[in-house]
Amino acid sequence: MNADRRSREDDLVRLIRSVAARPGTAGIRRSIGDDAAVLEPSPGTTLVATTDLLLEDVHFRRRWAEAADIGWKAMAVNVSDIAAMGATPRWALVALACPDSTGRDEVEAFYEGALAVCDAHGIVIVGGDTSSSPTGWIVNVTLLGEAVAPVLRSTARPGDVVAVTGTLGRAGAGLAVLERREAPAGLAPAVLAEVTDAHLRPRPRVTEGRWLAGAGGVTAMMDLSDGLATDLPRLLAESAAGATIDLARLPIAAAARTVAAVLDLDPLAWATGGGEDYELLVTCEPGAVERLREGLAAVAGTALTAVGEIRAGHGVRWIDAQGRDAAVAAGFEHFSRA
Amino acid sequence: MNADRRSREDDLVRLIRSVAARPGTAGIRRSIGDDAAVLEPSPGTTLVATTDLLLEDVHFRRRWAEAADIGWKAMAVNVSDIAAMGATPRWALVALACPDSTGRDEVEAFYEGALAVCDAHGIVIVGGDTSSSPTGWIVNVTLLGEAVAPVLRSTARPGDVVAVTGTLGRAGAGLAVLERREAPAGLAPAVLAEVTDAHLRPRPRVTEGRWLAGAGGVTAMMDLSDGLATDLPRLLAESAAGATIDLARLPIAAAARTVAAVLDLDPLAWATGGGEDYELLVTCEPGAVERLREGLAAVAGTALTAVGEIRAGHGVRWIDAQGRDAAVAAGFEHFSRA
Repeated sequence: MNADRRSREDDLVRLIRSVAARPGTAGIRRSIGDDAAVLEPSPGTTLVATTDLLLEDVHFRRRWAEAADIGWKAMAVNVSDIAAMGATPRWALVALACPDSTGRDEVEAFYEGALAVCDAHGIVIVGGDTSSSPTGWIVNVTLLGEAVAPVLRSTARPGDVVAVTGTLGRAGAGLAVLERREAPAGLAPAVLAEVTDAHLRPRPRVTEGRWLAGAGGVTAMMDLSDGLATDLPRLLAESAAGATIDLARLPIAAAARTVAAVLDLDPLAWATGGGEDYELLVTCEPGAVERLREGLAAVAGTALTAVGEIRAGHGVRWIDAQGRDAAVAAGFEHFSRA
Repeated sequence: MNADRRSREDDLVRLIRSVAARPGTAGIRRSIGDDAAVLEPSPGTTLVATTDLLLEDVHFRRRWAEAADIGWKAMAVNVSDIAAMGATPRWALVALACPDSTGRDEVEAFYEGALAVCDAHGIVIVGGDTSSSPTGWIVNVTLLGEAVAPVLRSTARPGDVVAVTGTLGRAGAGLAVLERREAPAGLAPAVLAEVTDAHLRPRPRVTEGRWLAGAGGVTAMMDLSDGLATDLPRLLAESAAGATIDLARLPIAAAARTVAAVLDLDPLAWATGGGEDYELLVTCEPGAVERLREGLAAVAGTALTAVGEIRAGHGVRWIDAQGRDAAVAAGFEHFSRA
């Protein structure tokens, strides 16, 4: 690294500090500007920690993702991991590498996108790193949170109900649209906006996760980042169990169905394999489902839909609307290489 | 991401888990395999957190850095940040992206390099992320630690002595050698090994940082990652103070002098601008220097050398052996772009 680049780096640190500082926030004794942030976790809580790396042309494209979108999503995907533990996100460390040609305004927009998510959830960016990238944008966010009783993936039990929050398929539909050079004809702008926004700016289920963790009856939880057909087997492997899923009960988003009809695609593939919906995948005691469904609707206005059951064994048995076994791919190619 | 890549990712997670798991370690309720790690900080400590991003052809080259070296260094630079707070490193999150062509053995070697540093300091890798990289290797490590009384950069006061641990210039000399296509003639293999090892596998000053933080009399501390001429001004800016440094007192490593003589370069430039020595930059009360020097030698066998003084004002005044003001660049180009 040469002197110019170091001075650019110090400039960026000043910029980040000026936009990210939240002086007077409880629990932060020292943030950006020292070797490490100094933090004071709340007594009686356990610490939860997660990290995610997002790369240009692997996780997003600059053709359709603005700097602010990248910042939003890099933060939101980590917030979703913390939400899936039933925890409260608190402190973020953000490492950003972008090409030397990147303007200061773009870097600022990136942080503003990340900070929009932070401010919505009371998170403060307390540290990070900046670097020049010889290729595209590279972002790593680490997020620390606190939980009173974190909900794991490994504690689902045979007989539990499998449920998901919200709806599925919008992010997959959004990506299918974004990857096209032109918006498909025959779609209402509101539908286009809904699905692309779902892909670019996911809303992590923090309130929902925290409420579910404390409501009693929830046995395991994780977030749907790679799609039900990839994520559910991960939960099952950790819990040493299997599951049966009723495809007809999956809450496929109306907007995803609309886009699928226009593009002549199957919205079920987005709901099971598209990923990036960042809904919560929940297992709970059968007797708790109704109470959890009503409570979540009252507390957060969010749906909770039972879609199947945990059983002894391993792997997922998918059942179609006719009650027959169905084949569901563990993921479908939704992002060809640049 | 397609199904193949997801399954490769799950394979990698299994591999990482198998090499990184340290079952039964106190303070870890859940590590790799869930949405987030669940950690139990020690009562009475504050949490410290730092993150560093290392990119191929910015921070290292595959021509001279083996996968194990990259893992070692990515972990060590974070450990050094924690050491500079006088803290104890505990939990690491490691995000790795490498090309699809990277062999499983190389990924394993990367983690073994990182784990060699972890095991030396009682650190456990509790989480992370893996991804395909469209270009080179990309590594982000976040490290969490605990401190009883963290030492900041912002608390140096006029009249304090400025001191450094160990010696300076070896890492700069090592890089100068590594960047050559052929080892320079006329250098003993032991000298070559010493300087290249200093660059590739820095030994962070954890014992030293913790002892200094608790010994009394230390007012501020940071690690030398970018070199004295870049890092000292950062400490001074945080402390709203200036400093005078005696260049003749800098503890330039004998091996750096030897390499400089053969390459006809100035070892002082490595000591002030080369960076990556990962020694500690310490300020302390004048009356404490002798005690700290003797104590550090006894506890860790590490030298502590007084090199100047904090004064009111701002910036660094460099004084040469003849007592004249000298110009020292804030960094010199030691890494041309690929």
